[in-house]
Amino acid sequence: MVAVVGTGARAVGLAGVLGEAGGAGLVVVCAEGHGELAELLAPELGGVDLVNLTSGTGAEARAAAELVRARGGRYLDGALMAHPEHLGRPETVLVYSGDAAVFRRQRAVLARLGEANYLGPDPGTAALYDLALLNFAWATLIGYLQTAALLGADGVPAAAVTPMLTRWLRGTVAEVIEDYATQLDAGSYPGEQEWLELDAPLMGNLVLASAERGLDLGLPRLVESLTARGIAAGFGRDGFASLVEVIRGSAAAPART
Amino acid sequence: MVAVVGTGARAVGLAGVLGEAGGAGLVVVCAEGHGELAELLAPELGGVDLVNLTSGTGAEARAAAELVRARGGRYLDGALMAHPEHLGRPETVLVYSGDAAVFRRQRAVLARLGEANYLGPDPGTAALYDLALLNFAWATLIGYLQTAALLGADGVPAAAVTPMLTRWLRGTVAEVIEDYATQLDAGSYPGEQEWLELDAPLMGNLVLASAERGLDLGLPRLVESLTARGIAAGFGRDGFASLVEVIRGSAAAPART
Repeated sequence: MVAVVGTGARAVGLAGVLGEAGGAGLVVVCAEGHGELAELLAPELGGVDLVNLTSGTGAEARAAAELVRARGGRYLDGALMAHPEHLGRPETVLVYSGDAAVFRRQRAVLARLGEANYLGPDPGTAALYDLALLNFAWATLIGYLQTAALLGADGVPAAAVTPMLTRWLRGTVAEVIEDYATQLDAGSYPGEQEWLELDAPLMGNLVLASAERGLDLGLPRLVESLTARGIAAGFGRDGFASLVEVIRGSAAAPART
Repeated sequence: MVAVVGTGARAVGLAGVLGEAGGAGLVVVCAEGHGELAELLAPELGGVDLVNLTSGTGAEARAAAELVRARGGRYLDGALMAHPEHLGRPETVLVYSGDAAVFRRQRAVLARLGEANYLGPDPGTAALYDLALLNFAWATLIGYLQTAALLGADGVPAAAVTPMLTRWLRGTVAEVIEDYATQLDAGSYPGEQEWLELDAPLMGNLVLASAERGLDLGLPRLVESLTARGIAAGFGRDGFASLVEVIRGSAAAPART
């Protein structure tokens, strides 16, 4: 019997999946914020393996690890990159960092929640992955909403275009990302098939088409601005992945327009 | 034998896939911009089915249709949402709009390039889809680059995290998008599992973590700003998909911060 401590839909979802598991001496915590932890946790945690799935920063995770150790428990931080209804599916991704012995001992129970990835002994690492993956999802989802709004303005229902969009996302876009990973680690962004100077006028077209339909221009202008800064920094004939240099601040770029 | 007219890698890729196809009376054009079209095309196009895969705006596509009709040809506009090396794979998506008879006649040849979707008689529709899909890809790819930069700042190579990211993209994120399509068409964004007020502090954490690592804050701040405007417009207990109302400008929101 695994004890699940927390409030909200995620804690309920966790209890639903873990309730019948073995998991001796395991407490899983999922609060809505780290501010609640000191009160939610028992004052004496001697002998307990505590897995904390509360979202927060790396610094908050490290503070939680201190708190748990001070109360006699062993600490593993975790991040759940999914909605509660995705819990328990094999394709659901969870990451963990902190006490390696806790991960080894509880791995079989944690695997009931989804794919369990151990990232190392720093309890803050999982939180950074959480934020990094949330960023990836939010960017993708905002892109989707902007695309749906653009087509919706011309009368296309979201249901009519979304199957094509998700097929494209799972195929071409995911493959482009896999290719970018190699480029990023090599620090080389060959512009053989597309390059920033080729993309820039299309980005101008996108801003124009969005403005004509009264849509928010934040996203199209961000893409256009990053690209303009990449071109100004000398990446005009390099591929889109070269924008990582602008994002890192390593490209010598002029002040933002 | 299909005639391919154009410059650059895409035209070369098209010729490679289409060169041996039947396609009687078919000319496929793929220039780097619409400005080149009047010169690239023959002055007399009598009897020709012209498929134009040059990227541009809907207005440019309509002007190209006028030009081709004035020269005696029949016009179908198309958009290729892929790099040249993706041409010819069944999962590659192409959209077409304009003369329906051209699409019917040439469909078997066009299907050699990838999935062929006909969107209707307005030659400008394919260009809008092109921009809308580019927007979706750019947002996703910028999200990926920002995520890779965030983890890279703490020493994680892109190759180490990308397989998890693309698995997550193909699974959870794509499913969330399919769910959002239903919400958008219904105009209802239930916040049962996550809601804007729950997301907002995590977005603040992301801005902080990015700032600590010296990264560009454009993307995290855009997500934070859209969400703040959604909350200000009364969507605090609604799900993330409610941000489409902010993007559409239909949410009564204060001036951007």
